[in-house]
Amino acid sequence: MGVIEQKLAGLGLALPPPFTYPRPNRTGAVRTGNLLYLSGHGLNLPELPGVRQRGKVGSEVSEAEAYQTARAVALTMLATIKKHAGDLDRVRRVVELFGMVNSATNFERQPFVIDGASDLFYELWGAEFGQHARTAVGVAELPHRMAVEIKGVFELHP
Amino acid sequence: MGVIEQKLAGLGLALPPPFTYPRPNRTGAVRTGNLLYLSGHGLNLPELPGVRQRGKVGSEVSEAEAYQTARAVALTMLATIKKHAGDLDRVRRVVELFGMVNSATNFERQPFVIDGASDLFYELWGAEFGQHARTAVGVAELPHRMAVEIKGVFELHP
Amino acid sequence: MGVIEQKLAGLGLALPPPFTYPRPNRTGAVRTGNLLYLSGHGLNLPELPGVRQRGKVGSEVSEAEAYQTARAVALTMLATIKKHAGDLDRVRRVVELFGMVNSATNFERQPFVIDGASDLFYELWGAEFGQHARTAVGVAELPHRMAVEIKGVFELHP
Repeated sequence: MGVIEQKLAGLGLALPPPFTYPRPNRTGAVRTGNLLYLSGHGLNLPELPGVRQRGKVGSEVSEAEAYQTARAVALTMLATIKKHAGDLDRVRRVVELFGMVNSATNFERQPFVIDGASDLFYELWGAEFGQHARTAVGVAELPHRMAVEIKGVFELHP
Repeated sequence: MGVIEQKLAGLGLALPPPFTYPRPNRTGAVRTGNLLYLSGHGLNLPELPGVRQRGKVGSEVSEAEAYQTARAVALTMLATIKKHAGDLDRVRRVVELFGMVNSATNFERQPFVIDGASDLFYELWGAEFGQHARTAVGVAELPHRMAVEIKGVFELHP
Repeated sequence: MGVIEQKLAGLGLALPPPFTYPRPNRTGAVRTGNLLYLSGHGLNLPELPGVRQRGKVGSEVSEAEAYQTARAVALTMLATIKKHAGDLDRVRRVVELFGMVNSATNFERQPFVIDGASDLFYELWGAEFGQHARTAVGVAELPHRMAVEIKGVFELHP
């Protein structure tokens, strides 16, 4: 087990099975050069405490639950990275996250929700390689009424 | 005519004229290294059956029409790629699509809409190079009331 | 003072202090290879005429004010670039902007709003290196009720 997966285990977390796409036109991640582009993740979440896969944040889903949901989304991203890169230790740095929160009208605390994912990446890769560029946004509708959807770009070791 | 354009012709499709921007501050695509970043596309669509350039998907525009519209948007992206890369055969792989669907309240089938674009890229470049990372999202308002807007990243041959 | 900052001064503009993030999990920009990925910007705007940091564009904020706001957002992006790249002259080209407008129902002129940022980059880097790929979209809710949020990708000199 690699260094990052050991850290994950130390946090009491295990990788879920990677998401399998219903059709072959798309996949969870594509590598180009040293960059790994991840698809938007948000389904097939592990059933950890507080995780709510569906619903509007700010009305049906609380901010605290949405934080846990974003953390679970990050876990599914890690499972995809492992599948496509072979090992989480292949990641050199987290480059960018784009987080979308299915937001109730007037909910404006999207950054605190997406922190659930950002904090996990930061815990795993630390200040030098875990600190990332980030955008958090509230959207009106997400596929399958997902509460949180996150895509990202990661740099791999050459 | 290159291989990809021949495949396109085999599907009964022809490239529309590339979109011309009203002002010089932006353009349809920018190359950096081997990556071609495409602007959000969704206007100037070819008038193919079912294509509906404007309107809310799930109320004014049906899911089946929106699928055809996303396919037409992908055609306009191909026209932009040809203009900026010279030939569609210069594309090595489809890296990422980000698809935005102008969604009626409670419409949550954005992935099935954006499949209209994903399927076309997959038909043209196949499993190895056509399968891409993808994000589909529902948005409240799109410029000029576009039904579907898609941006993307493509890898070119060096 | 570098060439780009001199041009900025010629436009009567000065760089604001770069945004400082409340938590260490994320930062304003991350470099990978020659690409600088910027976080979504939209807070801490300089108080220039017409700039309105918060509110719905099309109802609380006019289109003309939103244009000035997007220009101010671009200024804060430049401050981030300077902090992370050392000097604005390190930028080789503007690659991509993704602009989100907190839109009132039926507001569909997002491109004219985001032009406030695109025009500034175009004025500074000109046709060859300032023209960029761009996506403009209307979103339902932005963090802290920001009126405009913009993220971007810039290519640096090697």
